[in-house]
Amino acid sequence: MNLFDSLPRNAAEEIFTELLKHQGVTIERIVSTGQSTPLETPYCQDHDEWVLLLAGSAGLWIEADGEYSLRPGDYMLIPAGQAHRVTWTSADPPTVWLAIHFPPV
Amino acid sequence: MNLFDSLPRNAAEEIFTELLKHQGVTIERIVSTGQSTPLETPYCQDHDEWVLLLAGSAGLWIEADGEYSLRPGDYMLIPAGQAHRVTWTSADPPTVWLAIHFPPV
Repeated sequence: MNLFDSLPRNAAEEIFTELLKHQGVTIERIVSTGQSTPLETPYCQDHDEWVLLLAGSAGLWIEADGEYSLRPGDYMLIPAGQAHRVTWTSADPPTVWLAIHFPPV
Repeated sequence: MNLFDSLPRNAAEEIFTELLKHQGVTIERIVSTGQSTPLETPYCQDHDEWVLLLAGSAGLWIEADGEYSLRPGDYMLIPAGQAHRVTWTSADPPTVWLAIHFPPV
């Protein structure tokens, strides 16, 4: 299985693909093509999430820290309960994320 | 933090770097520059491991399945108890792996 196969281009929405769900952990691929999280609806999760940017580029705002500009290879842990938003993503090349969702604690 | 920063080149050994240890899960970067696992000492672990090849190229032999040739984006789950070996890795560019070690069950 290859993560970069059949990357969607110019999709209207971000595309979330579960790669593995195992021992309460979910490994997910996210492909963004220009989308961002609306200002008024940040994410806020009941579990920790580790993200790694694999391709493209993106902005990630985390409540406690401010905004980061991410390039391929950048990774960070988004703690449970932290509001966060994707502020922008590159469309071409598509932005590809790997997300590891830990079990809620 | 960036996964591709300060990649070792021409290291004598494979280099294992723990990126995160969290809720019993370990996220690790492995950089290989031509090394392989000796025939007589395959890995065999008490836990499941998910691997993703990020850069370079490599061969991975898994007891139950045979040998795979991996390119960037290829991923697979190596079940606990399965003997496995890295049969070859590219040295230039260095081979970069992401490994997720699940808790032993």
